[in-house]
Amino acid sequence: MSKLMTGAEYRASLATRKPLRVYLNGKRVEDVINHPIIAPSINTLALTYDMAHDASQAELMTTTSTLTGKKINRFSHLHASPADLVKKVKMQRMLGGKCGTCFQRCVGMDAMNATFATTFDIDKKTGTTQYHERFRKFVEYVQENDLIVDGCMTDVKGDRSKSPSEQTDPDMYVRVVERRPDGIVIRGAKAHQTGAVNSHEHLLMPTCTMRAEDKDYAVCCSVPVDHPKIVYIYGRQSCDERKMDTSPAGQIDSGASCFGGQEALVIFDDVFIPNENVYMDGEFEFAGLLVERFAGYHRSSYCCKVGVGDVLIGAAQTAAEYNGAAKASHIKDKIVEMIHLNETIMGCGLAACGEGKQMPAGNYLIDVMLANICKQNVTRFPYELSRLLQDIAGGLMVTLPSAHDLYNPETADYLNKYLATVPGVTVENRMKLLRLIENLTLGRAAVGYLTESMHGAGSPQAQRIMIGRLADVKAKQKRAKDLAQIKG
Amino acid sequence: MSKLMTGAEYRASLATRKPLRVYLNGKRVEDVINHPIIAPSINTLALTYDMAHDASQAELMTTTSTLTGKKINRFSHLHASPADLVKKVKMQRMLGGKCGTCFQRCVGMDAMNATFATTFDIDKKTGTTQYHERFRKFVEYVQENDLIVDGCMTDVKGDRSKSPSEQTDPDMYVRVVERRPDGIVIRGAKAHQTGAVNSHEHLLMPTCTMRAEDKDYAVCCSVPVDHPKIVYIYGRQSCDERKMDTSPAGQIDSGASCFGGQEALVIFDDVFIPNENVYMDGEFEFAGLLVERFAGYHRSSYCCKVGVGDVLIGAAQTAAEYNGAAKASHIKDKIVEMIHLNETIMGCGLAACGEGKQMPAGNYLIDVMLANICKQNVTRFPYELSRLLQDIAGGLMVTLPSAHDLYNPETADYLNKYLATVPGVTVENRMKLLRLIENLTLGRAAVGYLTESMHGAGSPQAQRIMIGRLADVKAKQKRAKDLAQIKG
Amino acid sequence: MSKLMTGAEYRASLATRKPLRVYLNGKRVEDVINHPIIAPSINTLALTYDMAHDASQAELMTTTSTLTGKKINRFSHLHASPADLVKKVKMQRMLGGKCGTCFQRCVGMDAMNATFATTFDIDKKTGTTQYHERFRKFVEYVQENDLIVDGCMTDVKGDRSKSPSEQTDPDMYVRVVERRPDGIVIRGAKAHQTGAVNSHEHLLMPTCTMRAEDKDYAVCCSVPVDHPKIVYIYGRQSCDERKMDTSPAGQIDSGASCFGGQEALVIFDDVFIPNENVYMDGEFEFAGLLVERFAGYHRSSYCCKVGVGDVLIGAAQTAAEYNGAAKASHIKDKIVEMIHLNETIMGCGLAACGEGKQMPAGNYLIDVMLANICKQNVTRFPYELSRLLQDIAGGLMVTLPSAHDLYNPETADYLNKYLATVPGVTVENRMKLLRLIENLTLGRAAVGYLTESMHGAGSPQAQRIMIGRLADVKAKQKRAKDLAQIKG
Amino acid sequence: MSKLMTGAEYRASLATRKPLRVYLNGKRVEDVINHPIIAPSINTLALTYDMAHDASQAELMTTTSTLTGKKINRFSHLHASPADLVKKVKMQRMLGGKCGTCFQRCVGMDAMNATFATTFDIDKKTGTTQYHERFRKFVEYVQENDLIVDGCMTDVKGDRSKSPSEQTDPDMYVRVVERRPDGIVIRGAKAHQTGAVNSHEHLLMPTCTMRAEDKDYAVCCSVPVDHPKIVYIYGRQSCDERKMDTSPAGQIDSGASCFGGQEALVIFDDVFIPNENVYMDGEFEFAGLLVERFAGYHRSSYCCKVGVGDVLIGAAQTAAEYNGAAKASHIKDKIVEMIHLNETIMGCGLAACGEGKQMPAGNYLIDVMLANICKQNVTRFPYELSRLLQDIAGGLMVTLPSAHDLYNPETADYLNKYLATVPGVTVENRMKLLRLIENLTLGRAAVGYLTESMHGAGSPQAQRIMIGRLADVKAKQKRAKDLAQIKG
Repeated sequence: MSKLMTGAEYRASLATRKPLRVYLNGKRVEDVINHPIIAPSINTLALTYDMAHDASQAELMTTTSTLTGKKINRFSHLHASPADLVKKVKMQRMLGGKCGTCFQRCVGMDAMNATFATTFDIDKKTGTTQYHERFRKFVEYVQENDLIVDGCMTDVKGDRSKSPSEQTDPDMYVRVVERRPDGIVIRGAKAHQTGAVNSHEHLLMPTCTMRAEDKDYAVCCSVPVDHPKIVYIYGRQSCDERKMDTSPAGQIDSGASCFGGQEALVIFDDVFIPNENVYMDGEFEFAGLLVERFAGYHRSSYCCKVGVGDVLIGAAQTAAEYNGAAKASHIKDKIVEMIHLNETIMGCGLAACGEGKQMPAGNYLIDVMLANICKQNVTRFPYELSRLLQDIAGGLMVTLPSAHDLYNPETADYLNKYLATVPGVTVENRMKLLRLIENLTLGRAAVGYLTESMHGAGSPQAQRIMIGRLADVKAKQKRAKDLAQIKG
Repeated sequence: MSKLMTGAEYRASLATRKPLRVYLNGKRVEDVINHPIIAPSINTLALTYDMAHDASQAELMTTTSTLTGKKINRFSHLHASPADLVKKVKMQRMLGGKCGTCFQRCVGMDAMNATFATTFDIDKKTGTTQYHERFRKFVEYVQENDLIVDGCMTDVKGDRSKSPSEQTDPDMYVRVVERRPDGIVIRGAKAHQTGAVNSHEHLLMPTCTMRAEDKDYAVCCSVPVDHPKIVYIYGRQSCDERKMDTSPAGQIDSGASCFGGQEALVIFDDVFIPNENVYMDGEFEFAGLLVERFAGYHRSSYCCKVGVGDVLIGAAQTAAEYNGAAKASHIKDKIVEMIHLNETIMGCGLAACGEGKQMPAGNYLIDVMLANICKQNVTRFPYELSRLLQDIAGGLMVTLPSAHDLYNPETADYLNKYLATVPGVTVENRMKLLRLIENLTLGRAAVGYLTESMHGAGSPQAQRIMIGRLADVKAKQKRAKDLAQIKG
Repeated sequence: MSKLMTGAEYRASLATRKPLRVYLNGKRVEDVINHPIIAPSINTLALTYDMAHDASQAELMTTTSTLTGKKINRFSHLHASPADLVKKVKMQRMLGGKCGTCFQRCVGMDAMNATFATTFDIDKKTGTTQYHERFRKFVEYVQENDLIVDGCMTDVKGDRSKSPSEQTDPDMYVRVVERRPDGIVIRGAKAHQTGAVNSHEHLLMPTCTMRAEDKDYAVCCSVPVDHPKIVYIYGRQSCDERKMDTSPAGQIDSGASCFGGQEALVIFDDVFIPNENVYMDGEFEFAGLLVERFAGYHRSSYCCKVGVGDVLIGAAQTAAEYNGAAKASHIKDKIVEMIHLNETIMGCGLAACGEGKQMPAGNYLIDVMLANICKQNVTRFPYELSRLLQDIAGGLMVTLPSAHDLYNPETADYLNKYLATVPGVTVENRMKLLRLIENLTLGRAAVGYLTESMHGAGSPQAQRIMIGRLADVKAKQKRAKDLAQIKG
Repeated sequence: MSKLMTGAEYRASLATRKPLRVYLNGKRVEDVINHPIIAPSINTLALTYDMAHDASQAELMTTTSTLTGKKINRFSHLHASPADLVKKVKMQRMLGGKCGTCFQRCVGMDAMNATFATTFDIDKKTGTTQYHERFRKFVEYVQENDLIVDGCMTDVKGDRSKSPSEQTDPDMYVRVVERRPDGIVIRGAKAHQTGAVNSHEHLLMPTCTMRAEDKDYAVCCSVPVDHPKIVYIYGRQSCDERKMDTSPAGQIDSGASCFGGQEALVIFDDVFIPNENVYMDGEFEFAGLLVERFAGYHRSSYCCKVGVGDVLIGAAQTAAEYNGAAKASHIKDKIVEMIHLNETIMGCGLAACGEGKQMPAGNYLIDVMLANICKQNVTRFPYELSRLLQDIAGGLMVTLPSAHDLYNPETADYLNKYLATVPGVTVENRMKLLRLIENLTLGRAAVGYLTESMHGAGSPQAQRIMIGRLADVKAKQKRAKDLAQIKG
C-alpha cells in the first residue's frame, strides 16, 4: 500500500521543504506554516488528508491507483471510469461542506489528469517525444508520496487584447528563455495560484491556445515548490486581518476561523527544469487541447461550491430559527430556492461525470459540454444563494458589535440583553452564526464562494465560448428545418 | 421476440378499437383517427413506433424486457439500471427534437414503473393482496402487444383548498362507488389526459396523498380506452384551427403541421373494472408513495423538452442566418444562453437517472430530489428560451401574412419582393420558419413547450414542496454549526 | 372647439374612405370595417374616441391644442410639459387595461411629436426648407378632424447586415424614385404597420440613421390611407381564426373577443406625394435624430403594456379565487411579484415623462435614456408576468374543451359537473376566464403583450445601443477614480 | 439666512458635545472623532455640509425652509412639492457617487418629514395633544443649527414571531417605563443606527404597527446624542481593520479610504425625555402610519445606491480599459446591463417623487407604492451589479498582494513587471482600482451597497407586504372580468 498521509504528517512534510521566499503584506514570512493568515489554509489541506483516514468517507476519499494498484488518496488518482468521476464530485461537495472554503487540492488533480492524457497524444503524434512516460513517473511519485500538486496555469497575461508573443514584455506568459542539453530555463509568473505555498510540486501548463509564433510559451513541466528561484507574493483577502486576532473573541469575529483558502502570485525567476520534468516544450498545437481538458475537469470540480452552498443553506435555516422566523412562508420558500439552485449545480456536475468518456491515454474525461454548463451556473447561482442568505440573516450580520464587546464587562450585559432572541439561543451562538454568514458572503470565504466561483477555471465568457463551440447547432438546425419542411 | 409495431401497425390497431365517444368543438367526432385536429397527434405516436425500427436509434428505442427477455419498445420497459434510465431521457430528448411536441407515451411508461414498484410494496405490507402479480400480467400484456398506456392521474379536483372527501360533490376525484365480488365500479373524471384518445389502455392512479377518510379515492386500476362508459371531451389548443386547413398554404400557416399533442377530459361514468385489473383499492397509505414515484419519474421525463429546446435553438440560428444577422455578437450570445439553459435541464435529468436506485420490486427509480430539480427548471427555462427565440426571430413572426397570400397571384410578387432577405433564402422558406417559430412559442407546440412544462408532472409549487422535504436541512445546519463552532 | 369624434363617428369616417386594397388569408377583403378578424381592432380604436367623451377620463383623454387652443383628443397633441407627458402614459395604461390589447393610436402621436420637432431643426439648419410650416398644417388638419395617423417607420430591411443603399434590391427601404416639380414619388414597403388599415393618414419616416449615399431614403411625408397605389397585406395572428366564429360559444373561445390589434404590410407602389406633404427629402443627417426622437417617445409609450399587465394580474387573482387557491402563500407571493414587475415598468415610464425637456420646436420630449430603460424592461417583464399567470391559472387553460361542448346537450352536464370548483363560480365563467388567459399568454393578445413588447419601438438590442451611448460613462469613471485616488 | 455649516464647522460642532459612551472592538473609544475606524464616516457627513457650499450643487443641496423662509441644507427640509422630492433623490444619487458609501443623513430627513405629518394627524384626531407644535419647534431648531438627526426606528425585536408586548423581556422594543409630570423615561435599544455617533439628535420612532396592548411602545421623541444615559456599541464591518493602517500603502489596501458608513447599537438606559421633546406617547393607532410614511420616504431615498452604482459602472469600465478588454462585446454588454439596472432603480425613485402628494400637515409624501417598488429593486439589482463588476474586474481583485509589497524593495520590481497590463497604466493605479472594487463588492462599502440595500428601510418581505396591500387588485379583477365578459 502506498503512503496515505494524515494531516499531521502532511504538516510535517511541509516543514521538510527548503525555506520558501514568501512575502505577505510587505514582509518576508518567516514561518510559512504557522503564520496566522496562512495556517487556516493549511488546516484545510490537512482535512483532505485526515478525511482519507475517516472510514465513513473511505469510498469517496480513497481509491486504487491505476498505475500501481495501491490504495491512494483520490486527489492523486487518474480517473478510471465515469463512476470514479462521480465519486470525485461527491468528494468535492463533501469537503466543501466540511470546510466552507477552497481546499486547494483539485487543481493539481485536474492538471495531472489533463496532462496525462495530452502527453500521450503528443507522443503519439510526434513519435519522437517521451513526455507521457516522464509524466507517468511524476504521477507515480505523487501517488507514492501522497503529495499536493499545484496545477499552475493562469499567466499574468498583460494586455488581454494581445497574444503571448505580441506582448510588449515577452514575459507576460511563462516561457522557455533558454534550452540546455539537460533541460530548460523558464521565466514568467502565474497568478492566483491556489494553495501554491502549501504544495509540494508545481505542475506548469500553458494558459491558452497557441500558434506557431507562441512556441516558446507552449511549455508544460513540474518543479518542486521549494525551488530557490521561485518567489511567492501572497494575496490579500477580504477580512484577512481578522485572522491575526487569535483570541477567543477574535476567533468568533473571524467567522469560520479554522479554515481558509490561499492564493499567491508565483514568480519563476529563470528556473531550470531538468528534462525528466518537461512534458511539453514547443508543441504549441497541443496547448489548446491541454487547456480544454484541464478546464473541462476543473469546471466540473466546482461542485465543491455545492458543499459550501450546503453550509449557506444550513446557516440560513439556523438564522431563521434563531430569529423565531423559521415558519414564515417567505423564509421557507427562499430556503427551497437556495436548495434548488445548489442542486442544479450538482446535477450538472454529476451529469458531466456520468457522461465521462475514456481518452486514448486510458483515463476518463468528463463530458466537456456539461462541465462548462456546470461552471457557467457556478458563476451565477452562488451569488444568488449569498443574496438569499443575507436576506434571511437580517441586517445584524453587518452591524454586529465585536465579540470583544460581548466579553467586555462594561458592555456584556447590554449585548446579552438586547441581542437575545428566542429561548435557548445564546447571544454568543448568535454572534458565531452571524460572523460565519459575514465570512461566507463578504469575508474570506466569500472570496472562494463568490469571486473564485466567477473566475476560477475560467471566467464566464470562457465557458460561453466553449458552449457555443461544442453545441452541434447544425444538427439542431436540421431538426428545425425538418419540422418546418424546409429543404436544404 | 415480442411484437414491435410500426407506425402503420399502430394506426391499424387504433382502428380495431370499439367506437370511442369523443367530443370536439361541440360535436361528436366520427373518425377519431383522421380528424385533421387529431391526426397530427397520432402521427407523433406513430413516430415512437417507427423510430424503434430505425437502426440508428435502436439502442435508445428498444431494450430487453425484464419480464419476458424479449426485445421491446423502451416505452413499455421496467427500468433495470441507472444506464437504462439514462437511455430513457436520451430517447425522450431525441424524440422531442424529432417532433417538436409532446409524443404522449411517457406518462404510461412512468405510470407502469411506479405502479409496478408500489403494488409490490402494498402486497408485502398487507400480506393478503395480489396486486403485484396482477399488475405484472398487465405489463406483460402491454409489452407483448406494444400498446400505449395512458397514465391517468390528474383528477379534476374541484375546490383546491379541500381534500377528496371534503368536496361538495364527492366525484371531484375518481372513486369507487360500488364494490362487487368480481370487481369495482369507478366514477369521476381525469383532466388533461395526454394522448388519451390515441391510447389502448388507461392506467388510473390516485392524484395525491390520502388519509383514511379518502379511502374510496385510493384506487389504481386499468381499463381499455374503448370501454363504452368512458366519455372523452377534447381540449382546444392555441391555433388548433390552423390544422383544419390542409391545403399546402394551410400546412405552412400551421407551423410544424405533421405533429401535435393531445389532451382530453376523460369521464368515467360508472365504469366496471374486473378484479384482475384492480391494483389498489383502499390502501390510502400508499397513495402518496405511488404519486411520489410517478411524479419523480415523470419530472425527469421532461427532458423531452430539451429536444424541443434543440428545435428552438436550431430555429433561432436559422432565423438569424435568414436575416443576415447571424454574426452579430448579441445574437451569438443569446444562442449560447439558449444552449446553456437547455443543457442545464438535460444535466439535471441525466443526473437524476445516473443516481437512480433499485426499488424492492426490482425496477429502478430515478433520484427523486434531482428529478424535482430538473422539473423545476423546466417550469422556467423553456419560457426564457421562447423569449430569446422571439427576440432573434424578429417581429415578423406575429405580423406575417398567410401563405395563401404568397400563393395569391395578386399579392405574390409583393411578398416575394418585400419579404426577401439574403440571397438563397426563398420567402416561402422564410415563411415556413417563422410559422414554426410562431407555433413553438405561441401555437399548438407552445401548449406543450410552455404551459405543459409548467404544469405537467405537477405545478412548480409541487416540486418546491418535495425539494424542501427531501433536502436534509438538518445535516446542512450541522455543517454550518460545526464551522461556526456552535455546540448543539 | 375642434371635433372630438365618438367611436361611432370614427367608424363612419372610415366608411367615407375610398376602397382600400386589403388582402387577408389569400383573399381581397371586401368589407374592411366589418370583417370578423378586422372588426375587433376597429373596436379598440373606437374606444380611444369614446373614452374622450367619458367625463371620468377627460383629464387623461383630452387636452388643449397648443396650435389652435381648442380641446382635442390627447392622441393628436403636441406635448406641452412634463405633466402632459405623464398624463400621456397614464392614459396609455388606462386604455391598455380597458382593451387588453394594442389600441394602435400611439405610433401616430409619437410620430407627429418627433416630426414636429425635427422639421423645425431641419429648417433652422438649412434656412431654405419650409418643412416645419407644412407639418404644422398637417398636425392642425389631424387635430381639427380628430384623425388617426399611422406612424409609418419600419422598413422591410432585406439583409440586416447591409445599409439601405447596399441592398441588392434598392427598394428594401422606402425611397424617392422620382422628383417632380410638384412632389415626389415613393416606392417601398413598411412592415408591421399597427392599425394601418384603420387609419386616416400615413406619416412615413426613415427607419434608421443614414449617410450621404442613403440620401434618397431620407424621406418623411404623409399620404392618405386610401391612396389607390397603396396595398395592404394583413398579418395573421395566433388564434386569429377564433374570431371567425361569432356565435356566443365562439365569442367565449375567442377570449376577449371585443378587442384586438392589427398589423399589416403596407406597400407603396410608386405613390405620388405633393410637396405640401413632404417633410424631409434628402436631409439624411436628420434621419437619425428623427428616429431617435420617435423611438424615445414610443419606448415610453409602452406603458400601455402596464395596463395589459393589470389585466393579467386581475386574471391571476380571479383564477386563484375560482380554484379555491387564493389564500396559498405562494400564490399571493406570485401576484405580488407580478405587481412589482408591472409597476417597475410604470415607474420607468413615469420617470421618462417627468424628466421630459422642451425641444427647440416648443414641444416636449421624454428623457431618452429613461424611455429606453422603460422599454428594455418591457422586453422582459411581460414574459415573466405571462409565465406567472400561466402558473397560477393551472393547466386547464390549454386543455379546456370548447364552449360549444358546454352548450352541447350531450356534454353539457359532464362539463358543468366536472369543471366545477368553488361555490358561486359557474363553469361558463371559469371558461371565459381561462380563455381570456389563453388569449393573453398565447393568443391574439399575446401577440401584442409579448412579441410586440419585444420588438415594437425597436428590438432589445436597439435599446441597449442607446443605453450604452447615452450613459455618461466617463463621468462615472471620474467618480470611481476620484474615490480610488487615481489621478488621470 | 440660517446657518449652513461647512464640513469643518460640523466637525467642530461634534467636538462640543459631552463625552459619548462609545464602545468598539471591546474598548471604550476615547476620541470619537479621530478614531481611524470612525473618521471616514465623519468625512462622509462632512461632505454633505461642504457640498452645500459648492455652487454647482446648490440647487440640489440647498433650499428654502417652509418654516422660516431661510436658506437651509436640503437634509433639514420639509418637502414642499414633487419637484422638491425629485431634487432630493437627485441629491442622494449625486452624494452616493461622490462618496461611494452611506452618507448617513437621509434617515433623519425622512424621519422628520414623517413625524411632522403624523404629529399633525394625531393632534387633529385627539384635539388635545400639541405634538405638532412641539415638533415644528424641533425642526426649526434643527434647521437653524444645521444639525444631523439620527432617525431612530429599528428596535432589536427579540423573537420575530412575537409582538412588542408578547416578548419575554419587555424591553425588546423601546418603551416608556415611567411617566412623570414633566416628561417620560424610556428604555430599550435601537439596532443598526446609521451615523448614530456622528449625529446631534436622535429622533425615536416606533418600529411597527401596534395594538392597544403595545401602548407603552408607541413612543416618539427626540433626545440629544450626548445624553449621558445613552450607550453606543459600534458595529464591525467587513474589512474594518484595513482602516487602522493609515500609511500610504494601507490607504491603498483600504479601497476608498476617505469615506465610510457607520452603524451602532444604541442603548437607552432609562433616559428621561422632557415633555417638549415627546411627539407621541401611547397613540398606538398612529404607529403604523408613522412607520409607513417613514418607510415610504426612506425606500425612495435608496436612490443613493444609484450613485454608488455609478461608481461600480465607472470602475467596471476602467478595469476593462486597464486590462485591454474594453472593446470585447461581452464586456460592453455587461456594462450596458449594469447601467440598465441602475437606471431602473433611479426611474422608480424619480417616479415615486414625481407622483408625490401633499399631506394634511402641508409637506409632501412620495408615492408609497412606487417607493416600495423602488426599494424592492434595490434589494436585487445592486447584487447583480456587484456580480457583473466582479466578472469584469477579473480574479485579481481577490488575490492581489498588498500595496506594502509594491513598496517593499524586495518585491516591487516583480509586481511592477508582472502586474503590468496596457501602456500608461501603472501597477499602483491598477492596485488602487482593484482595491476600490474589492471594497465595493466585499468590503466596507459592500456593507452599504449590498446588505444595507437588502435590509435598510425594511427587508424585502416588508416591501412585498406593502406592494400587495397598496395594489388595487379588485380594480384589476374588474378589468379582467370586463374583458372576459364575466358579470359579477
